[in-house]
Amino acid sequence: MALLDEDRLFPIEGRARDLARALYAEVRDLPIVSPHGHTDPRWYALDEPFPDPAQLIVTPDHYVFRMLFSQGVPLEALGVPRADGGPTETDGRAIWRLFASHYHLFRGTPSRLWLDHSFQHVFGIDRVLSAETADWYYDHIADCLARPEFRPRALFERFNIEVISTTEPATDELRWHGMIRDSNWGGRVITAYRPDGVVDPEMAGFAENVALMGEQTGFDTATWDGYLDAHRARRAYFKEFGATSSDHGHATARTEDLAPTEAAALFGKALRGACSAEEADAFRGHMLTEMARMSLEDGLVLQIHPGSRRNHSDAMLAMFGRDKGFDIPGRTDYVAALRPLLNAVGTRADLSVILFTLDETSYSRELAPLAGVYPCLKLGPPWWFHDSAEGMRRFREMATETAGFYNTVGFNDDTRAFCSIPARHDVARRVDCAYLSTLVLSGRLDEEDAPELARDLAHGLAKKAYKL
Amino acid sequence: MALLDEDRLFPIEGRARDLARALYAEVRDLPIVSPHGHTDPRWYALDEPFPDPAQLIVTPDHYVFRMLFSQGVPLEALGVPRADGGPTETDGRAIWRLFASHYHLFRGTPSRLWLDHSFQHVFGIDRVLSAETADWYYDHIADCLARPEFRPRALFERFNIEVISTTEPATDELRWHGMIRDSNWGGRVITAYRPDGVVDPEMAGFAENVALMGEQTGFDTATWDGYLDAHRARRAYFKEFGATSSDHGHATARTEDLAPTEAAALFGKALRGACSAEEADAFRGHMLTEMARMSLEDGLVLQIHPGSRRNHSDAMLAMFGRDKGFDIPGRTDYVAALRPLLNAVGTRADLSVILFTLDETSYSRELAPLAGVYPCLKLGPPWWFHDSAEGMRRFREMATETAGFYNTVGFNDDTRAFCSIPARHDVARRVDCAYLSTLVLSGRLDEEDAPELARDLAHGLAKKAYKL
Amino acid sequence: MALLDEDRLFPIEGRARDLARALYAEVRDLPIVSPHGHTDPRWYALDEPFPDPAQLIVTPDHYVFRMLFSQGVPLEALGVPRADGGPTETDGRAIWRLFASHYHLFRGTPSRLWLDHSFQHVFGIDRVLSAETADWYYDHIADCLARPEFRPRALFERFNIEVISTTEPATDELRWHGMIRDSNWGGRVITAYRPDGVVDPEMAGFAENVALMGEQTGFDTATWDGYLDAHRARRAYFKEFGATSSDHGHATARTEDLAPTEAAALFGKALRGACSAEEADAFRGHMLTEMARMSLEDGLVLQIHPGSRRNHSDAMLAMFGRDKGFDIPGRTDYVAALRPLLNAVGTRADLSVILFTLDETSYSRELAPLAGVYPCLKLGPPWWFHDSAEGMRRFREMATETAGFYNTVGFNDDTRAFCSIPARHDVARRVDCAYLSTLVLSGRLDEEDAPELARDLAHGLAKKAYKL
Repeated sequence: MALLDEDRLFPIEGRARDLARALYAEVRDLPIVSPHGHTDPRWYALDEPFPDPAQLIVTPDHYVFRMLFSQGVPLEALGVPRADGGPTETDGRAIWRLFASHYHLFRGTPSRLWLDHSFQHVFGIDRVLSAETADWYYDHIADCLARPEFRPRALFERFNIEVISTTEPATDELRWHGMIRDSNWGGRVITAYRPDGVVDPEMAGFAENVALMGEQTGFDTATWDGYLDAHRARRAYFKEFGATSSDHGHATARTEDLAPTEAAALFGKALRGACSAEEADAFRGHMLTEMARMSLEDGLVLQIHPGSRRNHSDAMLAMFGRDKGFDIPGRTDYVAALRPLLNAVGTRADLSVILFTLDETSYSRELAPLAGVYPCLKLGPPWWFHDSAEGMRRFREMATETAGFYNTVGFNDDTRAFCSIPARHDVARRVDCAYLSTLVLSGRLDEEDAPELARDLAHGLAKKAYKL
Repeated sequence: MALLDEDRLFPIEGRARDLARALYAEVRDLPIVSPHGHTDPRWYALDEPFPDPAQLIVTPDHYVFRMLFSQGVPLEALGVPRADGGPTETDGRAIWRLFASHYHLFRGTPSRLWLDHSFQHVFGIDRVLSAETADWYYDHIADCLARPEFRPRALFERFNIEVISTTEPATDELRWHGMIRDSNWGGRVITAYRPDGVVDPEMAGFAENVALMGEQTGFDTATWDGYLDAHRARRAYFKEFGATSSDHGHATARTEDLAPTEAAALFGKALRGACSAEEADAFRGHMLTEMARMSLEDGLVLQIHPGSRRNHSDAMLAMFGRDKGFDIPGRTDYVAALRPLLNAVGTRADLSVILFTLDETSYSRELAPLAGVYPCLKLGPPWWFHDSAEGMRRFREMATETAGFYNTVGFNDDTRAFCSIPARHDVARRVDCAYLSTLVLSGRLDEEDAPELARDLAHGLAKKAYKL
Repeated sequence: MALLDEDRLFPIEGRARDLARALYAEVRDLPIVSPHGHTDPRWYALDEPFPDPAQLIVTPDHYVFRMLFSQGVPLEALGVPRADGGPTETDGRAIWRLFASHYHLFRGTPSRLWLDHSFQHVFGIDRVLSAETADWYYDHIADCLARPEFRPRALFERFNIEVISTTEPATDELRWHGMIRDSNWGGRVITAYRPDGVVDPEMAGFAENVALMGEQTGFDTATWDGYLDAHRARRAYFKEFGATSSDHGHATARTEDLAPTEAAALFGKALRGACSAEEADAFRGHMLTEMARMSLEDGLVLQIHPGSRRNHSDAMLAMFGRDKGFDIPGRTDYVAALRPLLNAVGTRADLSVILFTLDETSYSRELAPLAGVYPCLKLGPPWWFHDSAEGMRRFREMATETAGFYNTVGFNDDTRAFCSIPARHDVARRVDCAYLSTLVLSGRLDEEDAPELARDLAHGLAKKAYKL
């Protein structure tokens, strides 16, 4: 028995299923290009065994623990650390049993597909997780994790990862990346430049971070010009560790293109902690345009990931800190918001800006029309809550007719759940093959063009868009 | 000949249709749980025959008369009462003929499915309604209505209704519910607490209603504390008549959590009719949080039905009054709007708040992410204009991946059209079976889990969520 | 070999495909009614040969050149004229080669379907366009264009166009329409009244246009009453050239119903160029209501096309002028925006207002509920970026259940690309037949009603709604 249907996510009907299956055969074994994600570079640097099954699969995965919490399971019981260091469950087996006994909650969700894919393909499991099989599962996975072929580098190779990007703050020393680079291991792990801590005046420690960036680079970051030069230097430093992109996750897509004196004045206020909320927002918006200008200089791809209203629950933020499943999408405007940046540099074909959204209404109304005309714009894949079979289908159906395929950039797994990476890429490949099959069989795509497109969507577009 | 296709709303293709049919066989005969609706308790109390066919089917159904009006049929000609008591058509047969001659307008609409289902299953009709068959229909239905087996209680039993909730204003004496309770009839008809008239300062008669609530409960509702105690007492009174929920239908989902002195001051202004529009809105928003706190005390489920812009046409409101088909949905924000309530009580697993929407864009962007993490939140079924095959399909496709099935609450018919109740539940059951079948055949759900889920969606989740 | 699949856009599955094919056979050869579009009346007046293939197919089609521009092809290289008259490519063959070598960009887009349809059906081509076939294509099409059967009137007849509307500014003399009317050619080409230049105070030349309208009509357009009378006179003039509709394309759907003195005061300010942005917007909104009142007098159908944020890129507007692919849709509210107009005249069944949108979220939330109750409102077909297989499917799925079919108005091609007209109507007919087939086979539509509906959607509704 298998946990997974071999034909999952393909069209149900005969000819369309057959064609999807044939297209999938073309791409199933292509290497994984993962140009945006959040795995921990320390794993690849030290290559130590992963800890117990619960620490690997349950405790760090916000998709998993948010669903359990929504049905009344306290996060403490899942071992999620408390901000105050107070007690939480530490017995991996107890956490695993709790997870297993709630596994029915994941019916019909992408988490279920990712988990079952990991269980079957990473750990060779053939029975369904439940309260009854919980202990067997725990023992089996724990045994696996103790073996050398389940260490990070071995899995990286087994997963057939051609290249993976992590994401680090602008002031990170990239110690683990250095260790990977200096090792004799051949895996390609690169970083990405994430400057939130030094472009967001409302982030705790902003002034200290900017000062640190000055120390790191030798520029006087108390001045506007020195601050910009320090960014340039840090971007160059990140490029030494393979970076080909920067990443920006503001609450909105607002951009600004302020006069230098105005930007410098705002920056000064930001350093003094004197910005109003509106001024801080304007400063963040302006920095996106500055980053785009630097991209024209140094070639880094600019990723804009807007729309998450972070830390929605005050109580949960106080108790457990950030990234605990309480980041909720909100309506996001792109048309007015991006105009300042696009008026500054938008018609440059040598710039590459990749747009993501958590607001699906923008696909057909805003994002596809924008990406379908501005040479610098490309559409990132469905993101976060939309990284799912239905989410991917809606993206293709709503974006392709106006933006085409070649203004999109393949798939991002965007995950910190290492074992789910092959599963996520597999879902994307299957959904795209299903979509292409449907286009062919409804006379909207030549059958001979479909295999090339399938390979582009699975592999080629990501390499090209991210310059990998 | 039958009016209805036995396989309606199932997938068209072979295997998926077969599985949907099999799942439907599991749920087709389950009793109806109707936890939210607007049937008239007087029907069940007095058990008198329904009036003529037009009075039963055309004149009270805003789905029906709004469509006819949209094509130029005056509401007067359909017998809809005028606010000034002026003349309208009173000849049921004339109204019925007008309806029948416009029946083609309902092609492709859910009203057509509901009506044909009533005609076939309630009245045993096998021919299509048209100008030609209008008189035959009228005579046939009129004959039926004169017979005992078409009285409300007999139909209630024939419809296999396990429990039905009506909705009454907070100050209602619940006379009909008392009569039902004191009768020897076994049908379970419960009420729900709808406090619009005593929480909305802009509702006509607000101060009088609050004063009446004081008389009813013995609390001094001229004071903030007395007013809250009066709510508690009325909620307890409603619980004596079976209520398990309260219901709140503001124009937006705004909530507030004001300091008690601030709330008390607003309440004073509201009683004096001195609230600005903004203050009235803040007061309504604050009262949602107060109701949620009372739910923690007394266990009533809190239903929030926002987003309708009521009485869009001034002329039609003046001529015919409220609820005449001119309530139009508008964009509705939940993420910011619900934060005050959720910050106050949102992480309590012993609270149950059911969210509805008329803005489908919120399913995947806001509602599923919120319900997928807050333990108090559940998603109500597609509502009003979305209570339809396509509306239900979109709800499942857009909500399930993030919220799962167990953060949803089964079906509500939410209707005052008694004969349509079995039809509406049947549509929901068919669409859900079709959806489950598609999940199974695309490898997203284990086939052995599908029957249990089908039963949960048709029956179990509604009972559990509404504590029935 | 054919470029097109004979069964394109039909359901893939057997029975549904068979029924769609049968329905399509009913409508495939119906004449084309094109009640809204932008072809050049000069073509029909002079009946001169079309210029070279690039000038016919590439250079004027913003769907085509925006996609090429989005992938880095400069507009100058495609022969798009510069605003300053500077040099652009004039060699049609060079432009065509560039287009052909990028033809893969259109995979999966409606442009590809329209182009291939033109190539196959207008020019009898059976091989795919590519860099390799570019010269063959160019020579073949150039040869065709030199022949009499490819002149505008011959194509008009070959395309089986029953009637086509162009769109002219309110102050246009309609010279070409006069020439067509006075010719002995039987083709029915009508105009539509587009008063942007005389109702939008922010349009360049507003005061001059208003003065010109005074000269044309003999009314004193320096006064509010004279201005309104001049509109009446110009509308009557347009009706002499067949106009049955007016057309209004503001950035939003805002309407106003100002008191006459207030409107007159705003008009005075507008003539003096003294309106603020808000006042100009209010004036445009008020003029929609005035136009609706005039429609009650003269019977012209009022078309409202809101939601495009025009000329998004300052640089492209400066370099190439308007209508160069940089018009981007934005969120559009209808519920509050239309209230003033609807409160003024909305319940009049002798008024006809056709609403379009670029914001698909409004279909189910706002437009279908509005059109499903107001007798004056009808829904226009999917427009611009949504004039596509997926766009049309979503429109039917999201609008039909609440508005029905008879509050919709058939198809508009809305194009200036003459050769694409049969292709666009063909796509609409196929998608509608596919939708009807799906309704029948899922038990939501009687099979015997489907052929009549198919004919109504393809032909009858457009004739009726536009009074053609």
